[in-house]
Amino acid sequence: MKFETPIPVTEIASMIGAKLVGNADLLATGLNEIHKVEPGDISFVDFEKYYNASLNSKATIIIINKEVDCPEGKAILVLDDPFSAYVSLVKKFRPFVPSTNMISDTAVVGEGTILQPNVFIGHHVRIGKNCLIHPNVTIYDHSVIGDNVIIHAGTIIGADAFYFKKRAEREVQYDKLESCGRVVIEDNVEIGANCTVDKGVSGDTIIGRGTKLDNLIHIGHGAVIGKNCLFAAQVGIGGKAIIEDNVILWGQVGVSKDLVIGKGAIVLAQSGVPSSIEGGKTYFGTPVEDARHKKRELAWVKRIPEMWNKLNS
Amino acid sequence: MKFETPIPVTEIASMIGAKLVGNADLLATGLNEIHKVEPGDISFVDFEKYYNASLNSKATIIIINKEVDCPEGKAILVLDDPFSAYVSLVKKFRPFVPSTNMISDTAVVGEGTILQPNVFIGHHVRIGKNCLIHPNVTIYDHSVIGDNVIIHAGTIIGADAFYFKKRAEREVQYDKLESCGRVVIEDNVEIGANCTVDKGVSGDTIIGRGTKLDNLIHIGHGAVIGKNCLFAAQVGIGGKAIIEDNVILWGQVGVSKDLVIGKGAIVLAQSGVPSSIEGGKTYFGTPVEDARHKKRELAWVKRIPEMWNKLNS
Amino acid sequence: MKFETPIPVTEIASMIGAKLVGNADLLATGLNEIHKVEPGDISFVDFEKYYNASLNSKATIIIINKEVDCPEGKAILVLDDPFSAYVSLVKKFRPFVPSTNMISDTAVVGEGTILQPNVFIGHHVRIGKNCLIHPNVTIYDHSVIGDNVIIHAGTIIGADAFYFKKRAEREVQYDKLESCGRVVIEDNVEIGANCTVDKGVSGDTIIGRGTKLDNLIHIGHGAVIGKNCLFAAQVGIGGKAIIEDNVILWGQVGVSKDLVIGKGAIVLAQSGVPSSIEGGKTYFGTPVEDARHKKRELAWVKRIPEMWNKLNS
Repeated sequence: MKFETPIPVTEIASMIGAKLVGNADLLATGLNEIHKVEPGDISFVDFEKYYNASLNSKATIIIINKEVDCPEGKAILVLDDPFSAYVSLVKKFRPFVPSTNMISDTAVVGEGTILQPNVFIGHHVRIGKNCLIHPNVTIYDHSVIGDNVIIHAGTIIGADAFYFKKRAEREVQYDKLESCGRVVIEDNVEIGANCTVDKGVSGDTIIGRGTKLDNLIHIGHGAVIGKNCLFAAQVGIGGKAIIEDNVILWGQVGVSKDLVIGKGAIVLAQSGVPSSIEGGKTYFGTPVEDARHKKRELAWVKRIPEMWNKLNS
Repeated sequence: MKFETPIPVTEIASMIGAKLVGNADLLATGLNEIHKVEPGDISFVDFEKYYNASLNSKATIIIINKEVDCPEGKAILVLDDPFSAYVSLVKKFRPFVPSTNMISDTAVVGEGTILQPNVFIGHHVRIGKNCLIHPNVTIYDHSVIGDNVIIHAGTIIGADAFYFKKRAEREVQYDKLESCGRVVIEDNVEIGANCTVDKGVSGDTIIGRGTKLDNLIHIGHGAVIGKNCLFAAQVGIGGKAIIEDNVILWGQVGVSKDLVIGKGAIVLAQSGVPSSIEGGKTYFGTPVEDARHKKRELAWVKRIPEMWNKLNS
Repeated sequence: MKFETPIPVTEIASMIGAKLVGNADLLATGLNEIHKVEPGDISFVDFEKYYNASLNSKATIIIINKEVDCPEGKAILVLDDPFSAYVSLVKKFRPFVPSTNMISDTAVVGEGTILQPNVFIGHHVRIGKNCLIHPNVTIYDHSVIGDNVIIHAGTIIGADAFYFKKRAEREVQYDKLESCGRVVIEDNVEIGANCTVDKGVSGDTIIGRGTKLDNLIHIGHGAVIGKNCLFAAQVGIGGKAIIEDNVILWGQVGVSKDLVIGKGAIVLAQSGVPSSIEGGKTYFGTPVEDARHKKRELAWVKRIPEMWNKLNS
């Protein structure tokens, strides 16, 4: 997320009670986790093995749990628990504000858009023109929806990222990373009934122009779905997955997090995609393989008894 | 769908700007895609390879993109883009009318039926007697629900069919086939929470008498589910699948479109059904096979290392 | 379920028209199906092969369809159809009462808890302090929710157990076991969007302290989920499954009913768990096996063509 106005790094340091090392004149312009970070952003790191990646990222200000050498032109904010400090900043700059109406006064809804009964629209939501939002849809705060979008009943746009830090020493072990990202749905997208599209941890979950989703589909936090994709019912997409344009996923396909599915790939029903796959091909299986290859393999498996007999004859 | 009153074919031709060939005295009585067509219906075809099937179907009036010989007793309506012409007729005869109340004034609800708070009931919906519809259920326009039906919270009845024509030359490539079919739920059906049952493209999606669905189940457009079936949670059924009576599908089973599952078949959990299967048997696997056979196959796979050793000894 | 005040067994016998055999002075204190039964409870049995298990269970009063020897200190209630008699008692002692408001007057909501717009809260629901319940959530009657719980939009807590008795001789074959159990969600649980957590048949479905569920997850009736578990999106858990503490289930995992997943087990995405598995290990596959073992097996399958060549050389 970006701040409305830049904040002096000295002010950030005092908000979270950190020791400031490096350039004290910097202005923070946003807040981002490491995968989405941009110049001007505050980010955080709390594992020694990620220190270098974080310090050398585009982040201008890094909250860190050890006093290390501060890279030129940056600032580091040193304290014991960077995760909690980062979460406190999310809560400060993107506070949860309860809603009292089904449609927030701060929401903007374009001309020609039809909101069927009982659609919930949170604060600062923007919806474009000529959309049709069916009953009982929930659109969380800060979501952005383009023109000519159709969302079917019961779908949830912008629920929190499923992202926790484990604190094995505590009784309640999973510590929530509060999310300040958004969902952005581009023009001419259609989303089926009872789907869930989570907001990004700090960046945007994006559904590209002209993409069509069937029912009961889950899109994880920060996933970026390309243009003109087609996902059949009950597909699940993990966090920060990148699905390029024209990808077709058939029913119940599962896609893991942090991977890329190349342009025009087709994944057959019930397959599981554990890591990146090239575009332009058809895949099948859990884990997925080239579909023709996988089908040959299934045929080979059926010949095992024949091989056994041959071996014993 | 059927029209309220028959429409002269000449009137249809002028609505869509088509050249009329054949019997100009015909009356159109309904609108149907090729899989559901009945005498009196208007249908459409835009691929040369389907011309014969369409012209020889039960359709009385065929919208087509080439001037071919018109079969005896029928009429053809010739224009460049039959798909768009058909969609324009759907929009004309089954227009979307926004709802202003949670329960439409045109809905009919039978005696003894309980509607829990915040149930949405669209226009022209008919619900029978002694039903129990739990909170936050959405029932789209024209759905028909029998007697003694229970629908649990959050379930969506009658969302649009997931059916698009690809227009590779356009920027927004998937062109929506507007659906004018219905969902018909027969007596004594129970549907769990957060399920989705899509309407048919032009015919009915049917859930047969006494069938029970668990939660988070998807039933695709135009599927016909028999009587006394039992589907466990997270099952997904593709469009126009026919599931005969007394079929049992365990959790997370996926069923492809355009197939038949025979009477009394049992499909074990997480299996995938890609094509028609006979009734009276138990199935397992993706793709499904006879369950005992599949289990033997799994046992054979475990013997590969033994075979390898034997081969190398 | 427990009765508000104990009921003489003679009164129960006359309610259901049963012949009372054994101790006629007993008081019934609750109603439970066989898996959850406690001393003082009424239970039922209608299959001869379960007679002994039922008569020797902790149940004090057993509804049964044959006049057998009554165990010391118990009572049996003899009639033709114990299932229907039991269901009639459930309906009598836990009658369904329609709701007229979105939030029942009998619900108790703790201090600091935020209910977003259009949350349905049924009769006798108890919600603790500092919870956040997002829009369009449905919480059925008698559910119990602890402190600091977050429930995302569209989730359904406490829908009916999916549990039917087959009556092959009837036209409507599946006869519903009315459920009188509850859902109990402990402190610091977070549940994602569009999940479904069913109530127990007669006991409680429990989600343990600090457990976090992603979106579109199904938890079956009477399942007991431990503390600090993590379930990714689209996981499904069958009825009465016991998931011990610190279990991690990745996306689209399916877990069958009536089994135990041991403490700290990890089950990889899309796997299927058909029966109990030990804690402390990582699993993969349908049916699940030790993940390393399963991956070796997948590698062996790829060597079948090589074996075939060797065999034929």
